[in-house]
Amino acid sequence: MLKREGGVADRVFHALADANRRAVIERLTRGPATVSELAAHLGVTVAATVQHLQVLQDSELVRSEKAGRVRTCQIDPAGLRNAEAWLQRQRTAWEHRLDRLGAVLDDQKKEPGS
Amino acid sequence: MLKREGGVADRVFHALADANRRAVIERLTRGPATVSELAAHLGVTVAATVQHLQVLQDSELVRSEKAGRVRTCQIDPAGLRNAEAWLQRQRTAWEHRLDRLGAVLDDQKKEPGS
Repeated sequence: MLKREGGVADRVFHALADANRRAVIERLTRGPATVSELAAHLGVTVAATVQHLQVLQDSELVRSEKAGRVRTCQIDPAGLRNAEAWLQRQRTAWEHRLDRLGAVLDDQKKEPGS
Repeated sequence: MLKREGGVADRVFHALADANRRAVIERLTRGPATVSELAAHLGVTVAATVQHLQVLQDSELVRSEKAGRVRTCQIDPAGLRNAEAWLQRQRTAWEHRLDRLGAVLDDQKKEPGS
């Protein structure tokens, strides 16, 4: 049976499969924001925002720091890098296969009788 | 309230949030495979494989064709491109912000009194 790369990729892609959580990331790429600012940006409650942030932090897409009563969030590049690296590996493998197919077809054109 | 980019990205990231579905994609980047071959590769039933394939096709990560009784699957590059494009946009926006921050810090070093 197949050995599977498990948890990290599961978590990061699950985190990204929600439009509100992607909206948080899009907002934070432009600079840090407090939890209240993110809630206002999304138009949802602070409680809902905190839940989304928990999922984003668990998948290393967002990190946060508390100063007094205010929690400020920012992008954690590790999660985005993880997701992008997996996708790039697939695209590279697939393009490599297409290149090899192309080479085989070229060879067949050169030697039509073979 | 925020306008959200909805369905397509939701579907593709949800599809990728499962280790078996990622294993199907990894397998198909090396070449087409029948449903039975994919089931054997994953070590799960054909019925479970068909369910995973449905999710992958709905998000344009995989396409398939039936010839007689045999369904053959291959990579659909559209889904991978969608996911990668979103991630690249976030990384670019974030790096652009870091560059601007760096420029501001450089300016402050040059004019420490200002």
